Amino acid sequence: MPTATGHTDAIRASRVIGTDVYNTAGEHIGEIQDVMLEKTSNGIMFAVVGFGGFLGIGEKYHAIPWASLDYDMQKGGYVVPYSKEELRAAPFYSINELTEDDGMKARNASYEYYKADPYWQ
Amino acid sequence: MPTATGHTDAIRASRVIGTDVYNTAGEHIGEIQDVMLEKTSNGIMFAVVGFGGFLGIGEKYHAIPWASLDYDMQKGGYVVPYSKEELRAAPFYSINELTEDDGMKARNASYEYYKADPYWQ
Repeated sequence: MPTATGHTDAIRASRVIGTDVYNTAGEHIGEIQDVMLEKTSNGIMFAVVGFGGFLGIGEKYHAIPWASLDYDMQKGGYVVPYSKEELRAAPFYSINELTEDDGMKARNASYEYYKADPYWQ
Repeated sequence: MPTATGHTDAIRASRVIGTDVYNTAGEHIGEIQDVMLEKTSNGIMFAVVGFGGFLGIGEKYHAIPWASLDYDMQKGGYVVPYSKEELRAAPFYSINELTEDDGMKARNASYEYYKADPYWQ
């Protein structure tokens, strides 16, 4: 079903990657670099949001719960309900750390930090 | 947990896209073009596997149930348990048709055809 913003439910991963991310204050906080998927089950673990580094060197990533991303047609990007201060203090990871421990480490710490409902329970 | 093939559970969508797909007879049947995600829930709908067309013109796609893709380290690609004949007779779609009706049309017909367990039930 289309959501209130007219966005439909099915979206291709390639269209998500590269989309800008804003917070509710309208501040640009980064860009979706990737989407982490579970191979042996059917869940979307989190969106990988980059927020710094230079040409990918030393870049750090947030593991943002998928359900917390709300597409805003006007902005042409996703909005997350976190302040800049909350994001600054949030868990962050290198690209390799994101898949460590099958992604559980980054996923569990992030869902706890953002107080997101664990989809796997 | 790593699977029998040593593959771990967390995989980035960008690494899935572009991966070759084979059937159990070892025949190359196509390439993963994209992964269809549910925006308002947390499910991976299906892998979008291209199998023809010329430079993307008139290309048709299969909606392959995510759980039916098994990564084969030696092949460096995914293996699906379908014969070439089964795939030839399978539902196929243009890229736009894949997202029609929020992806439900392609998803439901394909899961039924491939006799895959519906993850959404």
